Amino acid sequence: MISLHDPSARGFNSDNCAGVHPEILAAIGAANGGHQPSYGGDVYTARLRDVFRAHFGERAEAYPVFNGTGANVIGLQSMTEPWSAVICAETAHINLDEGGAPEKVAGLKLLPVPTPDGKLTPALIDRWAHGWGDEHRAQPRVVSITQSTELGTLYTAEEIAAISAHAHELGMTVHMDGTRLANAAAALDLPFRAFTTDAGVDVLSFGGTKNGLLYGEVIVVPDPDAVRGMPYLRKAAMQISSKMRFVSAQFIALLEGDLWLRSAGHANAMAGRLHEAVRRLPGVEVDRLPQANAVFARLDKTVAARLGKRFRFESWDEGTGEVRWVCSFDTTEADVDALSTALAEEVRV
Amino acid sequence: MISLHDPSARGFNSDNCAGVHPEILAAIGAANGGHQPSYGGDVYTARLRDVFRAHFGERAEAYPVFNGTGANVIGLQSMTEPWSAVICAETAHINLDEGGAPEKVAGLKLLPVPTPDGKLTPALIDRWAHGWGDEHRAQPRVVSITQSTELGTLYTAEEIAAISAHAHELGMTVHMDGTRLANAAAALDLPFRAFTTDAGVDVLSFGGTKNGLLYGEVIVVPDPDAVRGMPYLRKAAMQISSKMRFVSAQFIALLEGDLWLRSAGHANAMAGRLHEAVRRLPGVEVDRLPQANAVFARLDKTVAARLGKRFRFESWDEGTGEVRWVCSFDTTEADVDALSTALAEEVRV
Amino acid sequence: MISLHDPSARGFNSDNCAGVHPEILAAIGAANGGHQPSYGGDVYTARLRDVFRAHFGERAEAYPVFNGTGANVIGLQSMTEPWSAVICAETAHINLDEGGAPEKVAGLKLLPVPTPDGKLTPALIDRWAHGWGDEHRAQPRVVSITQSTELGTLYTAEEIAAISAHAHELGMTVHMDGTRLANAAAALDLPFRAFTTDAGVDVLSFGGTKNGLLYGEVIVVPDPDAVRGMPYLRKAAMQISSKMRFVSAQFIALLEGDLWLRSAGHANAMAGRLHEAVRRLPGVEVDRLPQANAVFARLDKTVAARLGKRFRFESWDEGTGEVRWVCSFDTTEADVDALSTALAEEVRV
Amino acid sequence: MISLHDPSARGFNSDNCAGVHPEILAAIGAANGGHQPSYGGDVYTARLRDVFRAHFGERAEAYPVFNGTGANVIGLQSMTEPWSAVICAETAHINLDEGGAPEKVAGLKLLPVPTPDGKLTPALIDRWAHGWGDEHRAQPRVVSITQSTELGTLYTAEEIAAISAHAHELGMTVHMDGTRLANAAAALDLPFRAFTTDAGVDVLSFGGTKNGLLYGEVIVVPDPDAVRGMPYLRKAAMQISSKMRFVSAQFIALLEGDLWLRSAGHANAMAGRLHEAVRRLPGVEVDRLPQANAVFARLDKTVAARLGKRFRFESWDEGTGEVRWVCSFDTTEADVDALSTALAEEVRV
Repeated sequence: MISLHDPSARGFNSDNCAGVHPEILAAIGAANGGHQPSYGGDVYTARLRDVFRAHFGERAEAYPVFNGTGANVIGLQSMTEPWSAVICAETAHINLDEGGAPEKVAGLKLLPVPTPDGKLTPALIDRWAHGWGDEHRAQPRVVSITQSTELGTLYTAEEIAAISAHAHELGMTVHMDGTRLANAAAALDLPFRAFTTDAGVDVLSFGGTKNGLLYGEVIVVPDPDAVRGMPYLRKAAMQISSKMRFVSAQFIALLEGDLWLRSAGHANAMAGRLHEAVRRLPGVEVDRLPQANAVFARLDKTVAARLGKRFRFESWDEGTGEVRWVCSFDTTEADVDALSTALAEEVRV
Repeated sequence: MISLHDPSARGFNSDNCAGVHPEILAAIGAANGGHQPSYGGDVYTARLRDVFRAHFGERAEAYPVFNGTGANVIGLQSMTEPWSAVICAETAHINLDEGGAPEKVAGLKLLPVPTPDGKLTPALIDRWAHGWGDEHRAQPRVVSITQSTELGTLYTAEEIAAISAHAHELGMTVHMDGTRLANAAAALDLPFRAFTTDAGVDVLSFGGTKNGLLYGEVIVVPDPDAVRGMPYLRKAAMQISSKMRFVSAQFIALLEGDLWLRSAGHANAMAGRLHEAVRRLPGVEVDRLPQANAVFARLDKTVAARLGKRFRFESWDEGTGEVRWVCSFDTTEADVDALSTALAEEVRV
Repeated sequence: MISLHDPSARGFNSDNCAGVHPEILAAIGAANGGHQPSYGGDVYTARLRDVFRAHFGERAEAYPVFNGTGANVIGLQSMTEPWSAVICAETAHINLDEGGAPEKVAGLKLLPVPTPDGKLTPALIDRWAHGWGDEHRAQPRVVSITQSTELGTLYTAEEIAAISAHAHELGMTVHMDGTRLANAAAALDLPFRAFTTDAGVDVLSFGGTKNGLLYGEVIVVPDPDAVRGMPYLRKAAMQISSKMRFVSAQFIALLEGDLWLRSAGHANAMAGRLHEAVRRLPGVEVDRLPQANAVFARLDKTVAARLGKRFRFESWDEGTGEVRWVCSFDTTEADVDALSTALAEEVRV
Repeated sequence: MISLHDPSARGFNSDNCAGVHPEILAAIGAANGGHQPSYGGDVYTARLRDVFRAHFGERAEAYPVFNGTGANVIGLQSMTEPWSAVICAETAHINLDEGGAPEKVAGLKLLPVPTPDGKLTPALIDRWAHGWGDEHRAQPRVVSITQSTELGTLYTAEEIAAISAHAHELGMTVHMDGTRLANAAAALDLPFRAFTTDAGVDVLSFGGTKNGLLYGEVIVVPDPDAVRGMPYLRKAAMQISSKMRFVSAQFIALLEGDLWLRSAGHANAMAGRLHEAVRRLPGVEVDRLPQANAVFARLDKTVAARLGKRFRFESWDEGTGEVRWVCSFDTTEADVDALSTALAEEVRV
C-alpha cells in the first residue's frame, strides 16, 4: 500500500496526531501470527499483568481498553453505584471533552469545581463533598483528578496523597485520569507507584495512545477491593478488544523497558525548550508553568492567526486568546525551534 | 521484542483468534510517520469514504469504530428514538453476546424471535411488529438481521429485500450486523451492495476484525437520511479512535483491492472442505448447511471432549452437544485435514 | 366542582378504570390538615412499616411509590448490578407493558421465556439460567414472576417456593410483580406471607391502585439484605412522593383491616360468576381457568365486535380473537349478569 | 380511619409539608365513582387540555405526571437528543435536588452556572453556550430556568423573554421548572402566558403539589413542535398515572377558577409579612428580597438552633448559617407572627 500522507510533517495540535513509535509497531508484529485466545485469554495479556504489577504494586489488576474515554468511564463506573456522583475539576476531560459519556453511558452525575490550574485540592473538593445519606442528592462517591492535567500542570505526590487522604476520610475513593501519566512520571522523576498506588489512588486510566501507541489504554486497579464487576462493565461499555493480544503487546513494549520514559521525557523536554524560547517574547503571556508536554500561552489573536498559517496548533480559549502547543515523542528540536522562531517573527510584525 | 507465543499454532475457536493479515500490517506501517489530524480529520479517513461509496453506493457514509458491539449499538441508536425497540433473532449477537450493551448503553428494548436457523422472515418479524402508537409498548422501529448469521447461515439477496420491503412498509428500518459480511459476499458471489444497499438495508456494521484486521469495524450508512447524530453518538459511546488514520488505512487495504475476497473466500472454502470431510462420519450430525466460514455439528459429548484435547474449538450448546468450528483467513488445508482426521479417529474409538 | 362523568357506568376493561373505594377516600381525608414532614418522614409512613411487617414478616421494609412500573423497575434495580439480566415470562408486564422502562430507566436486560399460561417453572427458568462468569452475557441475577399473572392464572405457594429454591440455588434472587397480590391472596385463601416471604420471594411490588386506591404501590422487601440503595434508587427513578403521608394512609386503610380482602375477594367472585355464566355458551372458548379477577375467552370476532358496542372490555389478542374481562371491587352482580346475558344473545345471532 | 397526626400543627419547612386544599379533595370526590378509561382517556383529562389552553395558548398541550422531578426530566428529554446538554443555574433543582435523575434516567449532561440569585442571564448562559458541531462536547440544546427560583427570587417577563430570544438565536430552546409557577404569577400579577408562552418558553413544568394538590404536576408544551415522543417518554419514565382522571380533576379545580391565585397569593403574602417582621431584627441578614413564598435569612447558628426547637424550618446552608422559611396556602397570620415573635425573642437572648 502506498502512503497517502507526508511522513515528515509534524505539528503541535495534540500528541494524538503523532503516529506509532517504531518499537511499538515491532511489538505488534512480534505478537502476530498463529492463533491466540481472544478477549484477553492470550499469553500477552497474562504477561501484561506482571508488567503492571511491577509498576503499580503486587495486587494491581490491569484491564486493557480501546481509548481514554472508555478507560475513564468504566473505571468510574466500577467504583460507583447507580446513585453516585463524581467530583472533578471543571476543566476535566471527563467533564468537557468526552461528549457526555460519563452521564450517557454510566448515568454518572459530575460535580465540577472551577479551579485556577486544573488541579483539585481538599478545600476545593469540599465544595461538593457533603449530602451523604440525603436521598435527594446524587451521592458523592469518587474524586477524579487528572495527572498531568488538561492545563499542562502537575500534582506532586504529596498533593495527591493529601487528596486521597481527604477523600478516604470522607468515605470516597480516588480516580486518576492518567492519559498522560508517563509525562507526569518523567516530569516528577518518580516511579509511577509513588504518586498513584502509594499516594492512595484507587483506580487510574493509564494512557498509551498519547505516548506512541497505535491504540489502547489500561484501567489500572491498585487495590481490586475498590471496584466491582470490571470485566462485565468493560464488555457492556463496548471496550473489550477481541484481538487483545495486540493491545497488551504494545503495553509490554512500552513498560517492560524504558520506552515510556524515553518518549515521555523527550516530549516534556521539547515542551520545556519551547517554553524557554517563547516565554520572554513580547506579547506572549504564559500563565502556568508548563510541567509536562504542553505549553499554553496567550497571544494577540492576529499573531495567533498568522502563526496558525505556518504551524498546526489549537486555539484553547477563544475569549482569552490562549493557544496550546503540545509536544510528542517524535517532536524534534528543529520542530520546536522553527515554531519559536516563527513566533518571534510574528510578534514583531 | 521477543514473541511470547507459537505463531504456527492455529485452532477453530473463532476467526477473532487469528492475527493480522500481513498486507494489513503493511498498510498500518505505510500510514505511520509524521502527524495527521486526529479523530478522523486525516487523509486516510477521507479516502475511506470513497472506498465505501464504491462498494455501497454514492450516498454512503462510513464511520470507523473500534469493535463490532460498538458498530451495532451505535448504528441501532442512530436509527431509533429513546422509546424504540428492535426486532431481532433470538440468536442474534446483539441479544446474546454483547453483555447487554444495547440495553445498557442505548436503552434499547430488544424483541427477540426464536428462529430455526438464525434467520428472520417477514412472518417471524410479525411476531412483534405491532403496537405502534400504544405508549405502553416500546415502539418497534428497527429490524436487525445478521449476515452471515451467528449460526453460519446466509440470507439471499432476495430474502433480505423481502425483509426490507416488509419493514419499510410497516414504517421500520433495517439494520444488518455484518461482522462477517465479507464471508457472506464471497459465499453469495455478489457485490456487497447487491444484498445491502440495493436490498434496502438502511444501516450496517461492516466487520474487519474477523477478516484479518488488527482492530476496527465500520458503520456503513447507505442512506444518510436514515440516521441522526452519528458523530455525537459515536463519541458518547466511546468508540471514536483518536489515531483514526490507522483504522481507515486498514479498511482501505482490505477493500480497495480484493484482499477482503481472498481472505473471506479462503475461510469459506476451508469451512466447506471441513464440512465435506466430516458430514458423513458416524455420530456427526450437521443440522444446517454451512454457508459461510463456520461449521456446526452435534457430537457425542465424550467424542467432543477427546477432540477438544487435540484441537481448540467451542462448545456451542451444552444441552444438544453442538460444537462450532470456525475457519479464518489463515486456516490451512492441512489444519482442516488434521481436524477431520482426528474426528474420524475419535468417533471410532 | 361538578362531576363530568356518569358515576353509574362501569365496564370490564381493567381494574384501573374503577375509581377509589370510599374507605380509601376517607383515609386520605383523615390524613389531611396541618403539616407533616415530606418524603416519608411523616407518622403515616412510620405506621406503614408496622402494617407491612404484620403481613410480610418482622424484617420487612416498605417503600411507597407512585405506580406499578415504578415499583417493578426500582425493585429490580435494587436487586441487580448494572451488568445484570432478569429472567421473566414473555407475557410479563415488565416485558410487554411498561414501554421499555426496565431497559430505558435501569439498563436491565430482560430474558423472556414463552410460557403456556404466564407462569414460569424451574425448567422454564433454565432456558436462560446459565452463563455466569461469562462477561459476554448479561448476567442472570433475578427471576421475576407475576402473582396473579397477566393471564389471570395463579401460582400456588408451593410453585413459588420451588421457583425460589431453584433461583437461590443458582445464586439468583426472586422478584414478584404483585400488582394484583390481593386478588391472589383472596383466591388462594392464604395470608400474604405464605406465598411471598415464606416462599422465598426477596422483593415484591404490592399493588394498591387496582384494588381501590387512588394511586400508590409499595415495594416490599422481606429481607433487606437482598437489596441495596433503595432510597436513592427511588428518588433517582422519580418515584418518591413529597406528600407521602397520603400514599401511606391509603395502604394503612387497605391493610390494617380487611378492606383488601373484601375488595379483592369480591372482584374474584364476580370473575367466577362471569366464568360460570359464559363458559358453556356456544362459540365461547375459555382456555385457562380464571383464578383471580380476570376472565379470558376466545370469541368469534363479529360476536366480540357486537358485544363491544354494548360493554367496554379489551381485545387481548387480535390474532386468536381472545378478549379479556376484568372485574373490580365495584363490579356488581347485575353488571356481570348484564354482560353474560348480552353475550348469550350475541352468540345466538 | 382515625387520624394519626395533629392537624393544627404547621411549620415552615416546605410547601410540600402542607396537606390538600379542601376544594381539591372535593374535586377528587366529584371525579370518583363509576369507571373511566385509564391512562388519560377519561373526560377529566380531555377537559384539562382546554383549561391549560385557556392559560397557555391555543396550541398548548398538557401532560399530567406524578411529581416535579418527573415533569422536569421528561420535559427536558422531549426537547433533547441523546447527545444533548442542558444549561442551568448551579442552584437549579434539576442540578442539586433530583438525585441525579436527569443524568441517570435521561442521560442528560447538565452544564451548571454559578449565579448570585438563582437566575440565569444571557451572559451567564454564554458560559457554556458554544461548541456546537464539536462531537467531543455534549451539545448545548436547552436552557432551563426556574420560576420562582430555588432561592425565592423571580424573573420578570422581560428577563425571560430576553433569555428565550438569546437561546432561540443560538438554536436552543427554553425549559422552565415551574414547580412554584402560581406563586410567580401571583407575585408578578401577570397571567401565566405573559411570562411563559408569550415570553418564548418552549416547555414548562407546572407545579400543583406545592400549591395545595394531593399530588400531580403537568408538563405544559405551548408549542408542540418543540417536543417529540412525549407520551412514550412519560410512559418509559414511569410517570403515567393509570387513574389519571384524579390528577386532571385536581388541576381543573385549581385552574378553572381562581383557587390557584387565592392559594399562591396567600402564601406569598404570608412570606411578605414574615419578611417585614424579621428583616430589621438584629443579627438577621436577608440577602435577597423574598419575591414569592419563601424567605431566606442568615442567623447566628445558636439562634437558629434555639428557634429550631420551637418551629420547623430548614437549614439552607450550613456554612453561611442561612435558613429558609416557606409559607403555604394554609399558613396563617398567627403562624407567621408566632415565628417572628419567637425569632425576636431568640435574637435577644
